[in-house]
Amino acid sequence: MGARKRLSSSEPPSSSPPATNENTNTNTTAKPTITDPPIAPPKWGLLLKLSLFLLPYLYLLFHHYPIEPELRSSILINAGMSLAGLFVTVKMIPVASRYVQKRNLFGYDINKKGTPQGTVKVPESLGIVVGIVFLVVAILFQYFNFTADSNWLVEYNAALACICFMTLLGFVDDVLDVPWRVKLLLPSIAALPLLMAYAGHTTIVIPKPLVPHIGIEVLDLGWMYKLYMGLLAVFCTNSINIHAGINGLEVGQTVVIASAILIHNIMQIGASTDPEYKLAHAFSIYLAQPLLATSLALLSYNWYPSSVFVGDTYTYFAGMTMAVIGILGHFRYILTFICQYSSFGYPICVFGAN
Amino acid sequence: MGARKRLSSSEPPSSSPPATNENTNTNTTAKPTITDPPIAPPKWGLLLKLSLFLLPYLYLLFHHYPIEPELRSSILINAGMSLAGLFVTVKMIPVASRYVQKRNLFGYDINKKGTPQGTVKVPESLGIVVGIVFLVVAILFQYFNFTADSNWLVEYNAALACICFMTLLGFVDDVLDVPWRVKLLLPSIAALPLLMAYAGHTTIVIPKPLVPHIGIEVLDLGWMYKLYMGLLAVFCTNSINIHAGINGLEVGQTVVIASAILIHNIMQIGASTDPEYKLAHAFSIYLAQPLLATSLALLSYNWYPSSVFVGDTYTYFAGMTMAVIGILGHFRYILTFICQYSSFGYPICVFGAN
Repeated sequence: MGARKRLSSSEPPSSSPPATNENTNTNTTAKPTITDPPIAPPKWGLLLKLSLFLLPYLYLLFHHYPIEPELRSSILINAGMSLAGLFVTVKMIPVASRYVQKRNLFGYDINKKGTPQGTVKVPESLGIVVGIVFLVVAILFQYFNFTADSNWLVEYNAALACICFMTLLGFVDDVLDVPWRVKLLLPSIAALPLLMAYAGHTTIVIPKPLVPHIGIEVLDLGWMYKLYMGLLAVFCTNSINIHAGINGLEVGQTVVIASAILIHNIMQIGASTDPEYKLAHAFSIYLAQPLLATSLALLSYNWYPSSVFVGDTYTYFAGMTMAVIGILGHFRYILTFICQYSSFGYPICVFGAN
Repeated sequence: MGARKRLSSSEPPSSSPPATNENTNTNTTAKPTITDPPIAPPKWGLLLKLSLFLLPYLYLLFHHYPIEPELRSSILINAGMSLAGLFVTVKMIPVASRYVQKRNLFGYDINKKGTPQGTVKVPESLGIVVGIVFLVVAILFQYFNFTADSNWLVEYNAALACICFMTLLGFVDDVLDVPWRVKLLLPSIAALPLLMAYAGHTTIVIPKPLVPHIGIEVLDLGWMYKLYMGLLAVFCTNSINIHAGINGLEVGQTVVIASAILIHNIMQIGASTDPEYKLAHAFSIYLAQPLLATSLALLSYNWYPSSVFVGDTYTYFAGMTMAVIGILGHFRYILTFICQYSSFGYPICVFGAN
C-alpha cells in the first residue's frame, strides 16, 4: 500500500508530515528499541487440574452408555482436533499479545491498584486468537463428518456464520470502544444467520417445578420462538460479559458451562433411541468440544494473576457459541443455561443492594 | 468491566497506575477537548454519474430478456435492500471514522506529501462499515428468497461465513499490522468454509483463444479444483489489495468488476433455459448487488481527494466476495476475473521494469 503511511505506536511520528500533538503517540524519553516484556508462561498445572472436569464425560462416553461406533469416532476425531486447537492457541497467544500491545490494546488490573502488579500493562482482547482457532477447527471438522447433502450442513454453516460475525463485532467493539446502546444491539445483529436458518420446532419445555403453577409441560411459542432465540443470544453474550472483572472469571465460567453441556449431551445421546435427537446432541458436542479446548488454553494465561485479558471479543464469542449450541442443538430445556441465569441474576442483586 | 482500565487515545494516562512513557499516548500541548475535524461530505454527484453503469443492466433486466416474474421480483427485492444498504453505509461512515480516529487508525496520503493536504489525518479501515452492512443485507435477504430446505442455503451460508471470516481477518490485519508472510495465508484460512461446502462441478472452460493450443474446450481438474478455488480466493483478495495507493482505486475497480458481473449474470440468465443454471447466476446477483451498492457508498468518500481510507478490511472483503460470487455462482469462465488478472499483471510488470 504505497500511498499511505500509518503511525504504529512503537515509532515516533516523523517530522514530515507534521502531526499535531493531539491523539498521536509521542515517545520522548524511552528508547524506540525497548519492547514490552513477554507475558508469563501458560499455567500447565492448572490445565491438568481442570481436565479432571472431563473425567465424568469420558466415563459416560466410553463406558457407561453403549454409543454407536461411528458416532463415537466422530466425537473422538472432533476431540483430537480440539486438542490440537488447544496447543495452537497456547502457542499463538504470546505472539498475538505482542501485536495487541504494539497497537495500545492493553489494560491495567485495577483490582491491584497501588501494588507493583497494578502498573503492569496487560495485553487486551486475546479472545481473538480463541475465536479464530475455534472457527478453523469447526470448519475443518466438516470434512470428517458432514456430507454435502446433509441437512445439518445448513445449520452448521449458519452457526459458523453467527459465531464468526459475533467475533468480528466483538473485536470491533474492543478496538473502537462503541457506546453501550450500540453494544446491546450487536448480538442481535450477529444472531441473524441463526434466525434465518432455523427450521426446527418452536416449543419449550417448562421446568418441572413450574409445571403445577403453569399447568402445561410444553409451551408452543410459534413465531415468538425466533424472538426468544434472538433474545437468548443477547442474554447469553451479556451474561458472560457482565461478569468480567475478576481474573479468569469470564473464561472460567465458560469452561464450567461447556463441560456441563458436554455431559448433558452425552447423557441425552446415551438415553435416547431417536437418531435425529442423537444427531442434534452430537451437533452440540462438535461445537462444545472446540469451545472448551480453546477456552482452556486461554484460561491458562487468564487465570489469577492474569497475564492477558480476554476482551469483549471473547465474551461475545463464547456467549454466542453457547447460544448457538443450545438453539441449534435443539435443547428444549430452558434450564440448560442455569449457570448463565445465575450469572445474570447475581449482578442484578449486587447492583440492587448498592 | 470493573477490573480493568484501558487507555483510550483521547485521554492522557492517569497518574495511578503510573504508565511508563514507552508506547503510551501522551498529550502534552493540545487541549483534551479538541476533537478531530469531521470528514468531507459524500460526493453524491459522483454516485449519480456512476449509477450510469447500471443502465445497461437495467435495460437487460427489464426490457431485453423475458425473465420470469418470480426471479425478477427476487432480484428487485435484493436491489431495494442493497439501496437501503447504500444509504446506511453513507450515514455510518462519518460516525465510524470518528471512532477509528480515536483509536489512532489513520494514515497520511503520502502522494500529497509536502502539500497542506498531506498533513491531514485520514481515517483508515472504513471497509469495516461496508463489510458489516453487506453481511446484514445478505443475511436478511434470505428471508425473502430461500426456504429452509433449499440446497442453496448450504452454499449461501458457507459464502456468508467465508466473507465474514475474511472481513474479521482483514480488520485484525488492519489493527495489528500482521507481517507479510501471515497476510498471504489469511485468505486461504478464510476460504475454508467455501471449500468445505462446495459440491459442484470440477471443470473449467478454457478461453476460446487458447482452445487451438490446448486442444480441449473443457478441462476437468478433479480434486485439484478445490486447490484452484483456494488459490483463486488468495489471488482475488490480493489483486484488489495490491492496487491500493491511488485514491479510490481499490473501491473503483470493485465497482467496475461488480457491474460487469451483474451484466454477465443477467445475460446468462436471459440466454439460458436450464433452471439450475439460472439459479446459480441469480445467486451471484444476490451477492453482487449489495457488494456494488455498499462499495458505491464507500467510493463517495474514498474518491479523490479521499476523506477516508478503506484498509485491508475492504480489499480482503471485496476480493473474497468476488471469489465467492465466481465460485458458488458456478461461473465456468475463468476469464470472468479478467479485470483482476490485469490488476495482478500490471504491478508485476511495473515491479519488473524497476
